Order: sequence, then structure tokens, then C-alpha cells
Amino acid sequence: MIIYNAKDWLGALRHFHTSYVIRILLRRVLLVGAYGALVTFIDQHRVNIDLPIDGTFFSLLGILLSLLLVFRTNTAYDRFWEGRRQWGMLVNYSRNFAVMMDAILLDSDRENRQFFARALSNFAVALKGHLRTGVNITELEETGGNDRKALAQSKHVPSRIAALLMRRLQKLKQQRVLTDGDLITIRTYHQAFLDITGSCERIKNTPIPFSYSFFIKLFITLYLLLMPLVLVETYAYFTVLATILAAYALLGVEMIGDEIEEPFGLDCNDLPLNQISQTIRRNMHEILMSELPVAQQTQLEGEYQKVN
Amino acid sequence: MIIYNAKDWLGALRHFHTSYVIRILLRRVLLVGAYGALVTFIDQHRVNIDLPIDGTFFSLLGILLSLLLVFRTNTAYDRFWEGRRQWGMLVNYSRNFAVMMDAILLDSDRENRQFFARALSNFAVALKGHLRTGVNITELEETGGNDRKALAQSKHVPSRIAALLMRRLQKLKQQRVLTDGDLITIRTYHQAFLDITGSCERIKNTPIPFSYSFFIKLFITLYLLLMPLVLVETYAYFTVLATILAAYALLGVEMIGDEIEEPFGLDCNDLPLNQISQTIRRNMHEILMSELPVAQQTQLEGEYQKVN
Amino acid sequence: MIIYNAKDWLGALRHFHTSYVIRILLRRVLLVGAYGALVTFIDQHRVNIDLPIDGTFFSLLGILLSLLLVFRTNTAYDRFWEGRRQWGMLVNYSRNFAVMMDAILLDSDRENRQFFARALSNFAVALKGHLRTGVNITELEETGGNDRKALAQSKHVPSRIAALLMRRLQKLKQQRVLTDGDLITIRTYHQAFLDITGSCERIKNTPIPFSYSFFIKLFITLYLLLMPLVLVETYAYFTVLATILAAYALLGVEMIGDEIEEPFGLDCNDLPLNQISQTIRRNMHEILMSELPVAQQTQLEGEYQKVN
Amino acid sequence: MIIYNAKDWLGALRHFHTSYVIRILLRRVLLVGAYGALVTFIDQHRVNIDLPIDGTFFSLLGILLSLLLVFRTNTAYDRFWEGRRQWGMLVNYSRNFAVMMDAILLDSDRENRQFFARALSNFAVALKGHLRTGVNITELEETGGNDRKALAQSKHVPSRIAALLMRRLQKLKQQRVLTDGDLITIRTYHQAFLDITGSCERIKNTPIPFSYSFFIKLFITLYLLLMPLVLVETYAYFTVLATILAAYALLGVEMIGDEIEEPFGLDCNDLPLNQISQTIRRNMHEILMSELPVAQQTQLEGEYQKVN
Amino acid sequence: MIIYNAKDWLGALRHFHTSYVIRILLRRVLLVGAYGALVTFIDQHRVNIDLPIDGTFFSLLGILLSLLLVFRTNTAYDRFWEGRRQWGMLVNYSRNFAVMMDAILLDSDRENRQFFARALSNFAVALKGHLRTGVNITELEETGGNDRKALAQSKHVPSRIAALLMRRLQKLKQQRVLTDGDLITIRTYHQAFLDITGSCERIKNTPIPFSYSFFIKLFITLYLLLMPLVLVETYAYFTVLATILAAYALLGVEMIGDEIEEPFGLDCNDLPLNQISQTIRRNMHEILMSELPVAQQTQLEGEYQKVN
Repeated sequence: MIIYNAKDWLGALRHFHTSYVIRILLRRVLLVGAYGALVTFIDQHRVNIDLPIDGTFFSLLGILLSLLLVFRTNTAYDRFWEGRRQWGMLVNYSRNFAVMMDAILLDSDRENRQFFARALSNFAVALKGHLRTGVNITELEETGGNDRKALAQSKHVPSRIAALLMRRLQKLKQQRVLTDGDLITIRTYHQAFLDITGSCERIKNTPIPFSYSFFIKLFITLYLLLMPLVLVETYAYFTVLATILAAYALLGVEMIGDEIEEPFGLDCNDLPLNQISQTIRRNMHEILMSELPVAQQTQLEGEYQKVN
Repeated sequence: MIIYNAKDWLGALRHFHTSYVIRILLRRVLLVGAYGALVTFIDQHRVNIDLPIDGTFFSLLGILLSLLLVFRTNTAYDRFWEGRRQWGMLVNYSRNFAVMMDAILLDSDRENRQFFARALSNFAVALKGHLRTGVNITELEETGGNDRKALAQSKHVPSRIAALLMRRLQKLKQQRVLTDGDLITIRTYHQAFLDITGSCERIKNTPIPFSYSFFIKLFITLYLLLMPLVLVETYAYFTVLATILAAYALLGVEMIGDEIEEPFGLDCNDLPLNQISQTIRRNMHEILMSELPVAQQTQLEGEYQKVN
Repeated sequence: MIIYNAKDWLGALRHFHTSYVIRILLRRVLLVGAYGALVTFIDQHRVNIDLPIDGTFFSLLGILLSLLLVFRTNTAYDRFWEGRRQWGMLVNYSRNFAVMMDAILLDSDRENRQFFARALSNFAVALKGHLRTGVNITELEETGGNDRKALAQSKHVPSRIAALLMRRLQKLKQQRVLTDGDLITIRTYHQAFLDITGSCERIKNTPIPFSYSFFIKLFITLYLLLMPLVLVETYAYFTVLATILAAYALLGVEMIGDEIEEPFGLDCNDLPLNQISQTIRRNMHEILMSELPVAQQTQLEGEYQKVN
Repeated sequence: MIIYNAKDWLGALRHFHTSYVIRILLRRVLLVGAYGALVTFIDQHRVNIDLPIDGTFFSLLGILLSLLLVFRTNTAYDRFWEGRRQWGMLVNYSRNFAVMMDAILLDSDRENRQFFARALSNFAVALKGHLRTGVNITELEETGGNDRKALAQSKHVPSRIAALLMRRLQKLKQQRVLTDGDLITIRTYHQAFLDITGSCERIKNTPIPFSYSFFIKLFITLYLLLMPLVLVETYAYFTVLATILAAYALLGVEMIGDEIEEPFGLDCNDLPLNQISQTIRRNMHEILMSELPVAQQTQLEGEYQKVN
Repeated sequence: MIIYNAKDWLGALRHFHTSYVIRILLRRVLLVGAYGALVTFIDQHRVNIDLPIDGTFFSLLGILLSLLLVFRTNTAYDRFWEGRRQWGMLVNYSRNFAVMMDAILLDSDRENRQFFARALSNFAVALKGHLRTGVNITELEETGGNDRKALAQSKHVPSRIAALLMRRLQKLKQQRVLTDGDLITIRTYHQAFLDITGSCERIKNTPIPFSYSFFIKLFITLYLLLMPLVLVETYAYFTVLATILAAYALLGVEMIGDEIEEPFGLDCNDLPLNQISQTIRRNMHEILMSELPVAQQTQLEGEYQKVN
């Protein structure tokens, strides 16, 4: 994710290179511009291109395309925001869980405090890995009993950590540390972990239906191919400028949509899962008064910075 | 569902044939194009067609139609996404249920572990069948006591499996394996199963109101019939191209909407219920440490693949 | 509700007469067409009508009107869908309630099983009546102790049935059939019944604000009255065709919105409350293994059928 | 709120005077029309006004303005509908609360039955006053122990009634009338009362941001001021008609939005809080079998009636 | 936040200076106007600028831009409203918590009553600081045991206060003041505090993706730069007026969006967090009958007032 100052208009324009997708977009816009230039050259110097398609009909298609693109943008942003909300909930429920265990566990119960601080941290870190390129076991902390080794063999690490947490809760109930009433509340927090996992997997694994994606891409392609042929008669050399503007607008909306609709990757508009999971890790150890093994504070300096 | 790479523009265009609805669409577009050609032929070579309807009025109708189509698209996508969310919740609640039973049941309690692993798997498999062409009893696993035979006679298999689960929970409570507090939590998971069933049935059985569907279809039909008559005077032979473009845009949005608004079928844009229910099955057996009878792993190779 | 096949384009067009609102619409469209014909006749044969209002300004008003109509459609559909969701939840919670009572009650406890099967069925049937033309007491089943007679005197039958259910639950608690923990869950199901009732009453009793409804109706009326006067100079006899098309589009969206925003009536686009409540009735008796007094299965044959 | 029949087109148009906002709107439209007439008069008889601003640019501004107005309408309606939903929930939770107390309290426990019937009724009545012009203590019923006098001194009457209810519940728990399990459920109902209060206060106290409101109002003002200057050259005397139409459309959407976004007042499009709170009052006394002190039944006769 | 009267049209227009963003907007509009004047001057007196770009194509781009701006507005307003809802929930849950503790604690238990009144007030005040410029420890009240000093060292004050509350609840449970059943309810209130904190942090820390923000800003910049060049030929001196109008519309929507999408600052459209947290503080002390140390009542006089 890029951290920026929304109200600084010039600043935003100056940092266009911070965004990978904007750079790709500008490259594609130039390509379409080159095609526009070719058409213009042919029309002006070789064969006269004279398509009797007038602006009104072409506008109408453009309006339908615009409406579809805004719908697409809306959908993509909803997915981005839902992903963000899920990770926000992970922060909340981790804190809720930790605050409650902190109140119930004795201050002297080092072992259990450490277990929960580490297991809750591990969950966030493992989910990050699970949604990106795979869980990196060395990022996880040892929760006792060689659990880390066992996790390395699990096919679904977050589920496994959730199961470990649930088993520990059950053990504490048998030891009468937790009452039935305590468990009713704690289990709703625990449940949230698997719900968040499932929701993130859903966003990751279910793109918008292929037919829509294809339909819009073909629509834009046809539109941009036709455009210089329609405009060249009246616009002459300005056809290139017009084509570039239209390509910027149409391709831009589509490409940004494509990028943010899958918010768990490492692209520069994706969510800073790494940063969030480190925040959770620090929070867990603070609340449960357990010492933090390795301090990994992301240092932020200035604006227009990427965090991952 | 088709699995694809949204950012690969050319790849998407090259795989249009993967989508059944896109192929039907192209066929219908050609049909409208043929009608456009016929009108053009008559105008140019036989009777001169001279409709004094100008672009402005025709555009206005087109804008209203575009707005309605985007509304329709929005509605259809909401249904698709709600269906997906319900199945995502089925994954979550199955896992929650299994993780909790795993913590409560003794590691040695093979019988109950197997019962829950199988009954929870059966629920997902039965719901898939229930929403598609009917429950295939041979896909279900035997949960003990000839239950499978009884299920074959049930009119509503998912409800029956839910009732079996509830009865087993009640038995475990009488055996003091489960406390009242445990049941308060487990029952919320159990409740989710029937809620999901009901929500999916609702999406399946309630299409958008017939009047809307009819209204939009008639609107598009009239629009496309009139279009070549309006355009032919100024566009001449390009009428065919314009008609094809308009038909692509209008029919395309409508048809994709029609397809994805019922997301539980076997069409290529429908949800991969089979894949999801197999995932649940593997998860249940893993979490409850019960051996999986028949391993059915869907193998995915390359991009642009259909999964059902 | 009309059951239809969304993907069958021609089939949909052929069954326009199935929908009452479509038939009314066509009648009103003809009326506006007649007005258009009158204006054209006067212009062509008597006084020349020459309004210097050009298309651009008129289009602009049309676009604002179109946007408002789509907003209106959206609102109406949301109400329709919310009504459907409430009845879907009624199905879910009835099943949840029944499945839980089935697990708790002894198989031999005929009396209580019958009570719950009948009272839960009665709730759905009474709510249907309450939202339509009034509760028909003869449709309800006797739940014991001359309750049916008492219900006939109640002003709000669904509330009364809910109170009967709650009292029976309390009695079962005093008889130690239900524990406090059981009641915590069952009461959330019970609560859902009154929540659903309230939500349906809200949809039924609160139309969109009168000012909006009036504003849009007057806007459309003025627009259609002015239209032939503006068009007649350039369109001549085709004014009639254009007026008919515009009337179809504008009146159609408005009228369908008016119809589906109140989804509990007996119109052909309304929800099949009768069918849903019969489904609940059969489900309740099946799950609680209580014999069903009178089998009322709605027989569906072919497509494009009305169910109420 | 005005009760009307949405499907009766002519009836709706005939009752425009029922709505205060529509009458104000028509007055403002006439004012703008007078301005348009003035501009036309000056142009035709004194100085020729010749603004070279063409329709296309002006249309474009109009489209952006239209989109903003529909966004504004959407927002206002969402607030209206959320307010309605909150009061619908108040009905639901009052009934849930009463039905549960009815089942738990002995039939002979007149005192507690009366307390809850009256306190629950008072809550709705007090909330109505709190959201309108202030709580009218004489509308409240005496719940025992001179509570009404104490309420008169409270700064936040609904909170105070909620506190009285909670204290009574606690007392009943100490008297072992209520168990811990009962309280878990009842407290969720009780919580709903304060949640509803807070949500209604939020809607009442937070208008849409001033900048938006100002921005749109200035936009419309500029647009309507400029309009006759742009149109007068081509439209001549019809400028007045066009200005009136545009003013109707633009001012209308804005004003209706302004009115319904604060749905708790006494305007004719506002919610019938008085009617709803009387319904709650009757329901509470019926369900708890407590006699109703003063019957205040709102009599509805015919359609197009105002209820407050 | 600015408190204003939405229905007072002229009043709203007269108070434009109350809003900082409106003043900045007017300044930027003048800047664009100056650029327009420069272009006009060059065209009329030096070199003739003759861009053959016609209105239709330019309109089409403008429509896409308008749609994107409305989408942007929608998104920004959703964030504003979600932020408001979170703080509304903070009011609700604080009241719920206090009302419940008031019923459970003895009237004579001054110490605990004061603790909860102060800790609950502190939470709201600390969250306000946390979301703005940092927690001002002197604004917090001493809850006993030198807690305030400890809070000064905490990195996340709201979490710390939540932990203190949870620990006190646990202590009361050990003292048998609270039962398990009480805690089940109170913990849902407690959980809400951390959920609200997390949600507000999410809104504050996650702006809309940089690519979108950049894309729209560049689009507007290009559009406004090109506009006078396109218009100057036909509009001559009126180009300045047209440019100013367009700049007002496009920049205005963007800037207001930028401002309200981060609703926790001290801008004049931001939420009155200070006022809300003082309301909570007064409510807490009233409900728990604990004396309020320092009365800080915000005095509101007249309309069009800023509250922060």
C-alpha cells in the first residue's frame, strides 16, 4: 500500500511513479497512441479513411461502457474494502482475545501468557503467508511442544493454529481456569479467526466472473481500435491526442480495478498485511505482558511510501 | 467457474471460447448483424428507408436502457456474490464446528470423530446436490446406523443431516461429554447450516421479478430492431458494423446477467460447488483426525481452467 | 410470482400476458400513443406546432428523469428482496426451531411434538394472512386447549402465536425438559419470528415517501405531454412511434417499481407467500415426525406459471 | 407520513397539495420562472442577450449535477429508511421483551406486568418526544414509586427509563423470578433500546456534511441563473417553460432530499412516530394482559391521509 | 462539523465561508479561471488557437469523469458515515455498559461506580486523542491506583483502558458481584469498545488506493488544462466563465471527497469527536450517579456553528 496525502494535489501528481499500475498504464496508453498515430498517418498521407459513423452513436456506446466500468470499479473497490475490513477485524479480535486472557490468567502464569501471545501472533503471520506466497515457518514463534515443526507439515496452517488454540482453551477449562461462561465469549473470538480466514480465501479465490472480465476487455479493445478510424476525418493530427486521452480513461479504470480487486498480493496498492500482522504481534505481547522476541518495527519516513 | 488471470489482457481475449455464454452471445450478435445486413441491402438496392428519427432521441432511449442494464448487472452480481458468501460461510462454520468438536472429544473417541467428520462432509455434498440436479446418495459417506439409506428417502436431505447432527449433540449432552455452555456455541454453528441452506434456496428459487426480465428483454429487442432502420440513411454499409457493436454491448450485458444471477448451476461462470464441498470434506477429516475414505483432489493445471 | 426461464429469450417475450402489470402498461402506452397521434394529426392537418425546444435540453431532462427512475427501481427492488429475505429467514428459523425441539423432545412425546409442529406452521400461515387480506382462522391448525378460538379474537394473530410458543417453552423449562442453556438458543429463534413480522409490517406500511412518488409521476406526465409537441416538427408521423417507445420505457420502469415495492400482495410479481408457508408446514411436520393433517401440495406444471 | 396508493396515478397527481414540500417547491419553481420571464423580456424587447455557450457544454454540467442529485437522493433515502428500520426494531424488541416477560411472570403478578407494560410503552413515547420537540411528561404513564416525577428532571428521559427497566430486571433476579439464562436473552432486548436511541440521535444530529450541501445548492443556483441566458437566443418565449421545467426537476430532487433526510420531524413526509409509539403501547398492554389506561386509536379514513 | 439548517437555502449560500474546504475550492477555481483567461487572451489577441476537438468526444470524457467522481463521492461519504456510526455505537455501548453496572452495583458502592464512570469516559476521550493528534493525558480522569501515570506510558491508550476495565470485571467476578451470566452480556459491550477502536483506525489508516486517487486527479488536471483550448474558438471571452464553472464542479466534488473521507480530523466537515466524547462523559456520570469533576458543556448558539 502507498501512504500518501490525499489533499496534496501536486504532490500526488509528482509521485505517479510510486504506483506500478500507473506506470504500466502509461506504457499501454502510449501503445494505443502509436496506433492512433499510424491511423492518422495513413489517413493524411496515404488512403483517406472515411467512416460515416457519427459521434452520437459512438458516444452512446461510450456511455454504456463508462457505466460498466464504474460498476466494475465499484465491485473491485468493495472487494478491496472487504479485505481491509477482514484484517481490521483480525486486529480487533486478536486484541479482544488477548485482553480477556490477560484478565483471566494469573500475572504469574508466564507459560500460558506466552502461549497465547505467540499463538495469536502466529495466526496473523500465518494468514498473511497463506494469502500470499505460502507460510514461512521461520516467521512463526515456537508455542511449545514442538508445535512449529508440526505446523510445517500442515496443509492449512491457520486452521491448525486455530485448532491448537481451541485445544488449549479446552485444557484450561478442564483445569478450571476458564468457566463455561468465559468460554462462551472466548469462543466467539476464536470463531472470528476462522471466519476471517474463510472470507479472505473467498476474496482471493473468486475473481469476478470470467465472462464479465472478458466482455469488458473486448468492449474496450474494440472501442479503442475503432476510435481513431471514427475521429480521424474531423480531428486530423489531434486524433493522436484524443486517442491517448480515451485510452488513459478507459484502460486506467479497468486496470486499477483489476489490481485492487485482489488486495492480498504484494502490488503497491495491495493491503499492508505484513505491517498489520507485525502490529498484531506487538499488541499481543504488550497486552499479555510477554516479552517480544524480535522487534520488527516498520519505520515510516515521509509521505508517498510503500508498505507491504 | 473459470479460473483466469485478470491482469493478462491478451490471454483473456484469447480464451473467449472457454465461456459458453460468450459463444452464445457471439452467435446472437451475428444474427442481429445479418438482420442489419438485410436492412442495409434493402435500403441500398431496393426501397429507400428514410426514418426521420434523429440520434438525440434515440440516444436518450439508449441511455435509459444502459442505466437499466447496469442496474440489472448489479443485481445479478449481488446474487452471485451472495451465493459465494453463503458457501464461504459453509466452509467457515464447518471448520469452526470441527475445530470445536476436535478440542472436546477425546483423541481416542474414534466413533464420534468419524461421525462428525462424515456428517459435516455429507452436509456440504448434499447441499451441492440439493441446489443442482438432486442429491446423489452414493456421494455421501455412511455415518453409522444405516443413516444413508434413511437419507435416500428424505425429501430434504440437508435438513435431515442437520437433524441427525442435532440429535447426536443432544446425546453427547446426556452423556455429559458436552456442557450447556458448549452447546450454546455449537448450536450457533449448527444454526448456520440451515441458514445457509435457506439462503441458497432463496437465491435459486426467486429470480428477479418476471416483469423486469420481460421489460428489459422487450426493450432490447425493440431497440435492436429499430436501430438499423434509424442508422441506415447516414451509415449505409457501416450500419452492419454499428448494429453488431450495439448488439454485442446490449445483449452481452443482459445475457451475462441472466447467467450469473443463478450461481448454483453447472454453467462455466457458476460457483465451483463441487470443488468447495471436496475442500470441506478434506478439511473435516484432517481437523478431526479421521481417515479420508476416498481422496478426490481436483487437479488444477495452468490458467483458464473450468472447475465445477 | 411467475416462475420462468430467464435464459429463454423468445419464451419470455411470448409470455408477456402472464404479467398483469405488463398488460396494464401496454394499455397505458397505447393511450399515450393516441395522444401522440392526435398531436401529429393537428400539426400535419390543422395548426402547425412549432416549439423551438431543441433535443439537447430535452435530452438533459430525460437523463435526470432516467437516473431518478433507476434510483426508484433500485429502491423498489431492495424492498422486494428484503421481503423475500425475511420470508427466507422464516423458513430457516422454523427449521432451526423444529430441528432443536426434535432433538430435545422424547420420540414418544407426541403431544409436544404436535404442538410445536402445528404452532410453527400456524405462525407462517397467520403471517401470510396478516400481510395480505387478514388471517383466515380456518387455515390454522388446532394446537390444543381451544387456542384456535382464542386466536380468532386476537387483533394481532402472529404475536399471539408467538406468545403461546413462549409460554409453552417456559412450561417445558419448569418441567425440566429444557435447560437454561437450551432456552438461550431457542429464544434467539423465537425472537426471529417477531423480528420477521415487524420487518414485513415495516415494508408493507411504509411506502416510499409520497413526495418522491408524486414528484416522479408528475415529471413523467409532463415529459410525455411535452414530447410529441417537441418532436412533431422533425418526426412528422413517426412522432407516434417515438412517443410510444418513450412511454413504454418511462411508464414501464415506474409501474414495475410501484408493483414490486409492495411484495406481499397477490399481484403476479409478488412473493409466493402461500407456497412458502405450505413448505414450512410440511417441513415442520416432517422434522418433528408429526402427521400432517391435510396435504396441500401446490402442483407446478411447465414454465411460466403463477404461484401465489 | 402520507398514506397513499402508489398505483393510482391520477389520484397521486390530484393530491399534490397534501405534501407541504411539493407546495413550497411549486412556489420556488414559479419564482425561477419569473426570473426566466424577466430575462426573456429583456432579450426580446431591450438588449439582445447572446451568450455563445452551446448546449453540449451546458448539458455536460447538467449531467454531473444530475448524478450528484441522484447520489444526494440516495443518501437522503438511506437515512429515511434507516430511521424507519430503527423504529421497526423498536416495535420488534418491545414485543419480544413483552412476550418473554409474559411467559415468565405469573398471571397473577399484576404489579410487575403493569410495570413492564407501562415502562416499555413509556420508552417509545419518550423516544418520540426526545427526537421531536422534547418529552411531554404527561404522555407517560406512572410506573410506580413516583418515577414520573423523577423522569421530568432527567436530561435524557429514554436513558433513564432504560435504567429503571434494568434495575427492575436486577431486582427480579435477586427475587429468583429471573434466572441468569433468562437475563442473557432479556439483556439483548434491553440493549436494543439504547442502540435504537443512539442510532436515531445519530441520524438526527449528523446532517450530510455542510460542504456537500452548500456545494450542491450553489451548483443548482448558478445553473438556474445561467440557464435562461443560454437558452433565450434559440428558445425565445419558450425559455420560460424550459426554465420552469428545469427548476422543477433540479429544485425538486434537492428539496425532497433535504426533507426526508431528517425523518423524525413533523413534516408530512416524516415517519409517523406518534402512530408507531401508540401501536407499541397497545401491543405492550395486550401482550402483558394489563389494562390500557387511555385508548388512543388513530382513526384512518380513506387514502391520502397524513399521520404524524 | 458545521451545524446548519438544510432547508434554509439562502442561509446555506450566505455561510459559505464557514467551510474551509469551500474557501480553498473557490481559490483554486479562480486559479483555473486565470489560466482560462490567459488562453482566451492569447487566442483573441496573439495566436489563434484552433483545436478541432468537438464537443461530443469531449462530453464523453466528461461523462466518464463525472461517473468516477460520483463513485468517489459515494466512497468518501460511506467512510464518513461509517466513522459516524462507529462513534454512535460508542455512545450506545457506553450507555449500555453503564446502565448495566448501575443496576448490578449497590447504590452505596461509590468506589466501583466512580471507577466505571471514569474509565468509560476516559475511553471515549482517549480514542478521540488517539484518532487525532495523540492522547492528552491531562484530559483523562484518575481511575485509582495511579492508573493515569501508567496510561501515559502506554503506546496504545485505548487498549490499555480496555484492559483495565476487563481486569476490574474479572475482580468483581471473583468477589461474586458479577455472575457468569452477567459477564456474558458485559463482555459483548466490552468487546464493542475494541471493535470500534479497530474500525476507526482502519478508516484513518487506509485511504482509497493511491492509484485511484492519482488517476482521478490527473484526469481532472488534463481535462481542465484542455478545456479552454477546446472551447476558446466558439466561446471567445465566455471561455473564462465556462472554465470557472467546470473547475467549480470537478474540483469541488474531488476536494470535498478528499476532506470527508478522513472524518476524524479537525477540519470543519469532520466529526465532532470532542463534543461526542463530552456527551459520553456526562452520560456516564449521570447514569452511574457519580459526580462529574469538571463540567465541560459545549454551548451552542445559533446556526452555522462549528463544533469539533
